[in-house]
Amino acid sequence: MNVVVQNIERADKSVIEGLGKCGVATVHEAQKRKGLMASYMKPIFSGNRLAASAITISSPPGDNWMVHVAIEQVKEGDILVLAPTSPSEDGYFGDLLATSMLAHGGVGLIIEAGVRDIHDLKEMNFPVWSKAISAQGTVKETLGSVNIPVVCGGVVINPGDIIVADDDGVCVVRREEASEVLRASLARETNENEKRIRLQTGELGLDMYNMRNKLADKGLKYV
Amino acid sequence: MNVVVQNIERADKSVIEGLGKCGVATVHEAQKRKGLMASYMKPIFSGNRLAASAITISSPPGDNWMVHVAIEQVKEGDILVLAPTSPSEDGYFGDLLATSMLAHGGVGLIIEAGVRDIHDLKEMNFPVWSKAISAQGTVKETLGSVNIPVVCGGVVINPGDIIVADDDGVCVVRREEASEVLRASLARETNENEKRIRLQTGELGLDMYNMRNKLADKGLKYV
Amino acid sequence: MNVVVQNIERADKSVIEGLGKCGVATVHEAQKRKGLMASYMKPIFSGNRLAASAITISSPPGDNWMVHVAIEQVKEGDILVLAPTSPSEDGYFGDLLATSMLAHGGVGLIIEAGVRDIHDLKEMNFPVWSKAISAQGTVKETLGSVNIPVVCGGVVINPGDIIVADDDGVCVVRREEASEVLRASLARETNENEKRIRLQTGELGLDMYNMRNKLADKGLKYV
Amino acid sequence: MNVVVQNIERADKSVIEGLGKCGVATVHEAQKRKGLMASYMKPIFSGNRLAASAITISSPPGDNWMVHVAIEQVKEGDILVLAPTSPSEDGYFGDLLATSMLAHGGVGLIIEAGVRDIHDLKEMNFPVWSKAISAQGTVKETLGSVNIPVVCGGVVINPGDIIVADDDGVCVVRREEASEVLRASLARETNENEKRIRLQTGELGLDMYNMRNKLADKGLKYV
Amino acid sequence: MNVVVQNIERADKSVIEGLGKCGVATVHEAQKRKGLMASYMKPIFSGNRLAASAITISSPPGDNWMVHVAIEQVKEGDILVLAPTSPSEDGYFGDLLATSMLAHGGVGLIIEAGVRDIHDLKEMNFPVWSKAISAQGTVKETLGSVNIPVVCGGVVINPGDIIVADDDGVCVVRREEASEVLRASLARETNENEKRIRLQTGELGLDMYNMRNKLADKGLKYV
Amino acid sequence: MNVVVQNIERADKSVIEGLGKCGVATVHEAQKRKGLMASYMKPIFSGNRLAASAITISSPPGDNWMVHVAIEQVKEGDILVLAPTSPSEDGYFGDLLATSMLAHGGVGLIIEAGVRDIHDLKEMNFPVWSKAISAQGTVKETLGSVNIPVVCGGVVINPGDIIVADDDGVCVVRREEASEVLRASLARETNENEKRIRLQTGELGLDMYNMRNKLADKGLKYV
Repeated sequence: MNVVVQNIERADKSVIEGLGKCGVATVHEAQKRKGLMASYMKPIFSGNRLAASAITISSPPGDNWMVHVAIEQVKEGDILVLAPTSPSEDGYFGDLLATSMLAHGGVGLIIEAGVRDIHDLKEMNFPVWSKAISAQGTVKETLGSVNIPVVCGGVVINPGDIIVADDDGVCVVRREEASEVLRASLARETNENEKRIRLQTGELGLDMYNMRNKLADKGLKYV
Repeated sequence: MNVVVQNIERADKSVIEGLGKCGVATVHEAQKRKGLMASYMKPIFSGNRLAASAITISSPPGDNWMVHVAIEQVKEGDILVLAPTSPSEDGYFGDLLATSMLAHGGVGLIIEAGVRDIHDLKEMNFPVWSKAISAQGTVKETLGSVNIPVVCGGVVINPGDIIVADDDGVCVVRREEASEVLRASLARETNENEKRIRLQTGELGLDMYNMRNKLADKGLKYV
Repeated sequence: MNVVVQNIERADKSVIEGLGKCGVATVHEAQKRKGLMASYMKPIFSGNRLAASAITISSPPGDNWMVHVAIEQVKEGDILVLAPTSPSEDGYFGDLLATSMLAHGGVGLIIEAGVRDIHDLKEMNFPVWSKAISAQGTVKETLGSVNIPVVCGGVVINPGDIIVADDDGVCVVRREEASEVLRASLARETNENEKRIRLQTGELGLDMYNMRNKLADKGLKYV
Repeated sequence: MNVVVQNIERADKSVIEGLGKCGVATVHEAQKRKGLMASYMKPIFSGNRLAASAITISSPPGDNWMVHVAIEQVKEGDILVLAPTSPSEDGYFGDLLATSMLAHGGVGLIIEAGVRDIHDLKEMNFPVWSKAISAQGTVKETLGSVNIPVVCGGVVINPGDIIVADDDGVCVVRREEASEVLRASLARETNENEKRIRLQTGELGLDMYNMRNKLADKGLKYV
Repeated sequence: MNVVVQNIERADKSVIEGLGKCGVATVHEAQKRKGLMASYMKPIFSGNRLAASAITISSPPGDNWMVHVAIEQVKEGDILVLAPTSPSEDGYFGDLLATSMLAHGGVGLIIEAGVRDIHDLKEMNFPVWSKAISAQGTVKETLGSVNIPVVCGGVVINPGDIIVADDDGVCVVRREEASEVLRASLARETNENEKRIRLQTGELGLDMYNMRNKLADKGLKYV
Repeated sequence: MNVVVQNIERADKSVIEGLGKCGVATVHEAQKRKGLMASYMKPIFSGNRLAASAITISSPPGDNWMVHVAIEQVKEGDILVLAPTSPSEDGYFGDLLATSMLAHGGVGLIIEAGVRDIHDLKEMNFPVWSKAISAQGTVKETLGSVNIPVVCGGVVINPGDIIVADDDGVCVVRREEASEVLRASLARETNENEKRIRLQTGELGLDMYNMRNKLADKGLKYV
């Protein structure tokens, strides 16, 4: 019942990097508003933007044994995504595990639970999006699984899916849809750049999007 | 039923600037502890202090159409105040709308809902006090109103009222009371400056405020 | 019924300083995971790490009278720990009280309620861990007590206990156990430093901790 | 600054009774979805439905002095609406105050804070909608006001406005609009009764509301 | 992009009924503790226990159009499972929709949002497990989908999966695993019945489960 | 480190029964407003009122092993009080453990975590005050302690302290103070009975408590 899936497929590296540059809001819109985690998944320090392939962890509450198991599966550019099997705010992860992650090319952590050693993680510039910050440690007594589908922040993540994360939160892109979503994201960026220039000059959204007639039709009154 | 009130009155510019320098805690005390929004209205990044005239928006949940309508009403030194008609954490506002606000002299946003593009808003130094951060976008399908009284963070805001906001939160000053509140705020600051100097020298509040007798009368025992 | 206990015992200064350097996560583990406050006790700005002797305050909701009483009891290196007798988010403490604290050698505040003047407290580098930020002021009408045992963030604090606090949260060390906890904390740090070096070279936790057999015994399958 | 407004206007008794029979959901729709309190305002026991004229109370946190003042203003069919000036969960109200209310014709309480003596209130069948249940008592030290506009559950209530409350929550109807809202509510009920009968026979909303074409136009696909 | 899947497979009726009799706690254990929704999914009134086939709805926030679409897909013994695409507490569902559900054999609703007409739903004995109660209505403007996989209460639900719900909460059983889970549930019930009898006679769990040696081995001391 | 304290002292049976009849609000006032648990500790079904001697349990998150250990220590009239060492909503306790409790004279459970089998517990009339309801089970892998002081709902409970609980919540009375608190509670009840009769006749609190002069002195204006 408790398994470690060892060989997972990952999206193309250039696609992942492309998504990382676009950021959460753009990617989320580009894939038609799906895959956004709940807003309680917050960065432990601000200023990060990344995309990475998910190594998923299903873990008992208050037990971080599977994190050690998962790190062996990490390759350059991977991120851990941990979902406990029942709610926990414990600190599953700290500076030692971050050290191990960096040594294996891991780039961050998404966790629906707590982390600790915030000061050190910030100095190491190891980004984490979590539900809580807590120094309360965990045990290593009960098995979980690695690289099975999990639900984190209200969203399904399959191993190898792409995590896009920045100060807006966390969004998941299906591995099979990554190229298509990147294409749509870049198109959206181009479109937004044009609009940004027009708005900077003072043009109103009301005119740029031709909203005035539709507003009048619905009955908006200016008084 | 859905209206845009176009000509609102604003307080005197120098009064608004004066209130901005005093900050939330002082202004709130000076107007006898009214007008403070709930503590879940938080700055998306720290270090801002401002006062501005409110352009109010009443908006359906998950629908930011009225923001475009409101920006046309913005004049130099105005701030948007958005209250949804039922609870929403959606990201009503991002870098494009901030660009448009800046082009029309707008100075910030108060919103009982979510915002997105946090990284860009911080780079543009566009301050926002919100209930949530979320990349989840909104639609433009249902009308709301602009410049009617709204309740945001548990407080009534009329269009043209002065919003004072800093890292302590958000406080609303009635337009008609602004001069009087500024006067009381400045008096309070003078008074506090004197106290600060005395406290810095080590004088105790117990002595400075003559509290010892009153404490003894109420029955406080030193053991 | 309402008392101020004037002469409390404090731990040795060098022990307190030693605990401050170890930080919350290490100290909490070293004393076998007891004494950690709930995760809603958060720093109002990041980057602080300290240890200090607790001056405790039991206060009515929305009444900060006892803070003035408590500051008279503060000696060099002390920290205030305030617990209201029923839930309150009011701003009990601001820049004037911080000025007074600094003048008497006080180093910070732990409060299961609100604080205000965040901007000033940050400029003064006066660290606070609180449940809320609120400009809502308090009154001075009802007595409480100083230096009696209180429960703050779900943990009992006796006057003179050592508060350890950093970006991970707040942990309490019993005064009588402080030397022993420091010894265990330092041993833990030495042990972690060795592990950190091995993990940096890429050694896996699975091997460093000899976990593979135990995982297999419990039934973990690699697929 | 602290006032008791003694003579307030109330809506017509038959209008109030009519609104009470319609209930919250119907009245809220009938007045175009305004006036609904936040969903944290919950009945302390289920099965009540009423409408009543509001006697409003603005009270300091943890201080119920003004409740005694307010009860003198209560007439047959009135309900108390209490909003604290900053967040409080304290138990402002229990069986003695309910006894006094009943003796003066009062019919219930709406309170953005706590109540106690739940068991007794249920036995007396005295309905309350509150934010919390708490045995924590209050003091009688600081003034507030009676019959001024307050914000409770995110909504403005003026003295004499009509409170409609049932197991769905609490809704406020402006006194001046009460007759019109009752008319619209009754019309809505008639309309819903017709629909209910058609739906009971198995007719689909899709057909009853002629939705099929609009769904197809927007692009809904059946697969 | 927005679809209605019309023909879904359902589990065998006798299996569904069997699961309903076992209840949430037993079924959840029997399928090795997966499929349990978050504890904020609560019954609007107590005393119900059921199992039913899921008709799933993915809906925009504050828009219940798809509920009408979904009811056409309901067959005898089905339950609706609605997940909004971003957080909403609005009242998507009330007594009219319940009337329509009952007319088509529907047995209840699971919704990660709000419901209204609680009093009527209780009188009709129409069970609902929801995240909120709110009279705030919704619109019918934006498409969603019916019978696609959704995440509700943190769990994936496929159309045709079996929902088991009672006063403990809501649990999802995969359609393909339903027979096997029923078998395990019944075995578990038999086993628990035996234990219940032994416990009723006063036998201790310590003895019945042979825990004393294991406790001593781990180091538990009796003092 | 993990201990079971076997012989604890209990208060006199008649004192415990007396406190149970007075209820939470009266007892809490009578002991000067100390010992009240936070308002998130709620009854799983209403209508209970009891007092009992506390058997305390300190338990790891998601691990109910110590409950079995604790039940061996239960004597006629005892209640279990369980506090996890870090936050957990898991269902530690269900109908089997309740059966065992009843067989040994146990009368209820106070738990800062979750319970399950709500329907059965209600049928058995086994009262529980908990932080959550959850069918998620627990493991039996890690030791805790029995009959040591714990913090539950923000309050310290020593083994043998008296728990008073009803629909208002939970209050703790120190064993050594129980007789004195009972005396004060009964005096309070007598006093309240007199007031209740006067209030029933329509006498106002304003007159009964002689408040009018004090209100006028503080500056209350009638307009």
